[in-house]
Order: sequence, then structure tokens, then C-alpha cells
Amino acid sequence: MESKNDLLLRVAKGEKTERTPVWLMRQAGRILPEYRVVRESARDFKTLVKNPALATEVTLQPVDILGVDAAIIFSDILVIPEAMGLNYEMEEKRGPVFPKRIERESDLDSIHVCEADELGYVLEAIRLTKQALNGRVPLIGFAGAPWTIFSYMIEGKGSKTFSEAKKMLYTQPAFSHRLLDMITESTILYLKGQIEAGADIIQIFDSWAGILSPDQYEEFSLRYISRICDAIPEVPKTVFAKGAFFARKAMNNIACNVVGLDWNMSIAESRALVPGKALQGSLDPCALYGSLDDVRRETRRMLDAFGPYGHIANLGHGLYPDTEVDKVKCFIDTVKEYSTTLRK
Amino acid sequence: MESKNDLLLRVAKGEKTERTPVWLMRQAGRILPEYRVVRESARDFKTLVKNPALATEVTLQPVDILGVDAAIIFSDILVIPEAMGLNYEMEEKRGPVFPKRIERESDLDSIHVCEADELGYVLEAIRLTKQALNGRVPLIGFAGAPWTIFSYMIEGKGSKTFSEAKKMLYTQPAFSHRLLDMITESTILYLKGQIEAGADIIQIFDSWAGILSPDQYEEFSLRYISRICDAIPEVPKTVFAKGAFFARKAMNNIACNVVGLDWNMSIAESRALVPGKALQGSLDPCALYGSLDDVRRETRRMLDAFGPYGHIANLGHGLYPDTEVDKVKCFIDTVKEYSTTLRK
Repeated sequence: MESKNDLLLRVAKGEKTERTPVWLMRQAGRILPEYRVVRESARDFKTLVKNPALATEVTLQPVDILGVDAAIIFSDILVIPEAMGLNYEMEEKRGPVFPKRIERESDLDSIHVCEADELGYVLEAIRLTKQALNGRVPLIGFAGAPWTIFSYMIEGKGSKTFSEAKKMLYTQPAFSHRLLDMITESTILYLKGQIEAGADIIQIFDSWAGILSPDQYEEFSLRYISRICDAIPEVPKTVFAKGAFFARKAMNNIACNVVGLDWNMSIAESRALVPGKALQGSLDPCALYGSLDDVRRETRRMLDAFGPYGHIANLGHGLYPDTEVDKVKCFIDTVKEYSTTLRK
Repeated sequence: MESKNDLLLRVAKGEKTERTPVWLMRQAGRILPEYRVVRESARDFKTLVKNPALATEVTLQPVDILGVDAAIIFSDILVIPEAMGLNYEMEEKRGPVFPKRIERESDLDSIHVCEADELGYVLEAIRLTKQALNGRVPLIGFAGAPWTIFSYMIEGKGSKTFSEAKKMLYTQPAFSHRLLDMITESTILYLKGQIEAGADIIQIFDSWAGILSPDQYEEFSLRYISRICDAIPEVPKTVFAKGAFFARKAMNNIACNVVGLDWNMSIAESRALVPGKALQGSLDPCALYGSLDDVRRETRRMLDAFGPYGHIANLGHGLYPDTEVDKVKCFIDTVKEYSTTLRK
């Protein structure tokens, strides 16, 4: 079935559209009171992720309530390490914690390249969402970039410096590549499953891209992202590598269609570095703390900088949980209105 | 009195030297067993900072033990907010915490622009260190950049997003400038005091530079750093703005002599963007987790990229506390040896 609103897909494919599409990272989540109701009905975050009916419900909320131009399946990038054999807990304040982490080469014996059906609950949520959306907007599937997943598997939790993971790159490069390879293979199978289940476009999140040097990024992250993009030619791909300003030029040469920007990256400079792709982003999530007038002004400024074509409006990071809903709506409405007038 | 080893000052002033000078951010600290002995003799971190004799002792340790080309006074960037009237505690695992923080404009009534003599214990430590060094190497004084200090005063602690501080910039720009102004004035008086007490060069640390957008950085950080540089023409100045890759071009136009780089910033690109200054940095601190051979290789690679002149060798961030001393020594020795051969 064709999407009725396929703005996002058309921009990703390089087409000119009548207005700029808009969605927000973490649009399904704590900012919506309707989400919090569902979240409280589930025992914990992971119960919600693993229940296809509930995951579908919260995936649809921002489409219905906020009027975004895409749904993104409600899930977590850490489902991959879990399916590979490394269980994690989501602690309310601390974030994800792995009771057991990968510390040495022999630990690889306890994990495996996972098949898509080991993540059947995500695929089922995609099928249900796709059905419920009934073509209203495209559905975004996603996965973490292998380097980011690797970092969690080695550190066992979030970190400011990820020095354990980086230590591994310096001291055991061959072992690092072996683990990155296993994650990459798992991710490809998983994303192929998502596409079969109905995902219209895939986003790869490299949350910890910004802690690597340009050379290390090339060797330990970008080559794996590139392999994933090559392996799923069926749908458009977006790569969002937070903080990897230094990799923009190289991003232009991999088989993705959209490159995500954060608010540190100059829009004009990024256009010059990534001439061949659509760009996604990049408003500072803190800009939504301002007044409605502030939000309108900052959003227009962003749209002016990107210009009318080859842009998917978004933030430069996930929504912060204390953002007010009317500011989010104002951002979305401003994109829709102002990007239409930009074309006149 | 002239420094006997004034390599660092000569490079900062744009002179060609017989080899590349080297020091490390956080060289006085937990990596040295000798530091840990002194640290344990003091009740806590702040007692150590406030005791000029002990601060002098740990400042001298890396000069004696590691053979670095500069001493940096042992202190903390948060002495400024404290002297302004906002007390902080250093919690062992959590880092700095302010029991009371700046939440609204009226809170400014409880703080004041501080005079240098309110930080007399730092000035005394500088005088003692200067005397003890007896000109062996230059002494670096330092302060936090106003934006970084502002962030701590608003957040009351470290943060991943510093969204409270950034919210203030968006919602209350006039108030933000008022507080930044007070911090700037305090910092200028403090640095003038440090220079009078004997600091040979000043480094400004903008630890949270990387969370601002380029426009916000210009408005809320760089202009204040620039004002500080203009106000202390007596000695060379180094500005290290972690993560502010987007500000390198603008840095070339302020009255500092040296620009610090982190390991994300391409050295060749930085040379092109900052042609008028010496550069400092920029090895990834995690590179010191490798074998001695790895450390030598990575250090030589860095030196090759910077070339023989206009470079002060350092890391791209402070030393991580679990770094082995022999790796640090290897880094220092490699800089000394290889940079000498580079000139032949």
C-alpha cells in the first residue's frame, strides 16, 4: 500500500516536495501524557518494548497527537545485544545496565549472531503499526550503529568517556573487529526483518560517534555502517552519527540517502560536505524551552538555512523529557507552514 | 627570573624551538602514586586545593617525576564560583555539587564579583611553586571559561546535556549575559592576580564548549573569552574549548596565542583554520592505554601531523586516572626524542 503522506520518503529519495517533512527523535515518549499512561500500565520500560500491542500504541501516539510526517517504531537500540545473548536492565535514573559485559575474547563464546526472529516482538510491532497506520505516514525502522552497540557491550553501561570501549580499540583491534562484525551481521538480519515486516525507511543511530578520532571512526564505525547500508538496498537509509562532524565528507560516499546533523554542525558547511544526500535535523532540543515566539523564530531560522529541498526537519538530538507539548506542536506547525511559504 | 626551560613560552610566542615542548592536562593528579599519598594526607580534595604548601607539592611532582616542560598550578576551575559566593562540594564519585545554585535573577544578589585576594590561597600556591621551580620550567595559571563556570552555577552539578544552563540562554538571554559578565570580571581580576603572583602563561578551559551551537557559542562564550584575553596582555594565553570544532576559525581572531585541540579535530584542518596561532594537543587520552609500542607510534603520528613548529604537545583532554605512569613517560619521552629528530 502506498503511504498517503510520503513526503519523508520522497525527500529521502532526492525528490522535490511541496513542503518539508517533519518528525522528532524520541517523539514517542515521556513528553506525551498519553505515553506516560501506557508506560505506567506496563511493569517497566522493557515490558513496554516487548509488548507489540503497547509498542504499537505508543508508536502511533505522536502521529495522532502531534501530526508528525512519520512514525518511528517504539523500541531500543539495545535489543540487539540482548538478542545476541547479553541481557540488559533499564534503570529508571541510571539508564541501561548490563549485568554481564564483554571483557575478553572468550566472552564471545557466550554470544551469537542473532536472527531476525529472535527479535520477533519488534517485527510484530512493526506489522501491527503498519496495519494501524494504514498508509497515513511512513514507518521508520531503526538500529544502533555497531560501534555504539559495541560500546555498551564493553562498558556494560553508559559512560562519559567510554574509555573501556576505546581502550579495547587501542589494545585489541582484531578482537574489536570480530565483535563489531558479529554486531553488524546481527543488525543486517534484524533490519532486513524490519523491512519485510513493513519498515519504509531505516535510521542508524551512532550515538557515541563523537568520542572517536576521525581515523578510528573510519576504521571502527563507518565501515560497518557502510556495510549495513549496502546490505539493505530495498529502502532509503538515514545515518545519524551524533558528534561526528569530522565524518560528514565520508558520509557523502556511503550508500545512505539521508545524513542526520546535530546542532553543532553548521548547516551551510554540511550542505557543502554532503552535497549528494538529503539532510535531517538539526534544531537544538533546548530551543524548545523558549517561548512560542522563540520556537517559531528558531525553527524558521533553521528552515532558512536548509532551504526548501533535501531537508527532513527534526531536532539535532532526541527530545528532552521535560519539553512542553505545545512547544513541540509549535515546532511541527511552524515547519509545515513556513516551509510551504518558503516555496512561493 | 628567566625560565631555564622556556620552550613552551617560546612556542606560544611564535618562535621556532629546538624541540616540541610537552605537558599533559591533569598531569598533577591521580595517575601519580606520589600524588595519591599527598591527597590521602588531606581531608578531601578541597582541603588540598586550599592548602598552598600541599598544592605546591603536587604541582611540582610531574616536573620532577615525569620531566614535563611546564608546571600547571594545582587548583580547580570552580574556585571562582566559590569565591563569588556559591560554595561547592567535591563528591568522590559524582564530581562537583553546589548545594545552592543560581535559579533566577534575584539569586545574583547573593553573589558578587570577587577580588583576586579572595582567592589568596591560589596566589600563594603560585608564589611558592614559582620559588620552588626556580625557573626550571614555566608555570601555567588557569581559569574556566565564563560559559563553563556559568553552566555549573546554573546546573549545580555536572550534566550530560547541561539543558538547564542552555534553557537559561534561550529563555533569559539578558540575565545570562549579566551573570556571564560577573564571572568574566571575576576571572580577569583572578588571572591578573595569578600573573602578578608569577604565572608565566594562562590557559582558559572551556570544558562545555561543545554543547553550544555555533551561534550561541559566539554570543555566550567566545566574546567573554576574547574579553579576558584582551584584559591580560602581560602573558601568552591558551584557549582550550573542548568540542568547539566549529569555533576554530573565530579563535584565530581573538587575542590568544595558543589554541588547544581535542582528538576529534583534524590537525591539518585546524592548521588551515587557525594559521595565526600555535596549536596545543591533541592525542586521545585512550591512546595511552595501548602498549609502549602503540604509544610511541601514535605519538609520532601526532608529531608528524603537527610538524616541528608551532606545536605544544599534549593530550586532547585531561589524563584519565587509570593511565599507567610508564605510558605517560613514554608519551613525554617520545615527544622529546622524535620532535628533535623531526628537525634534522
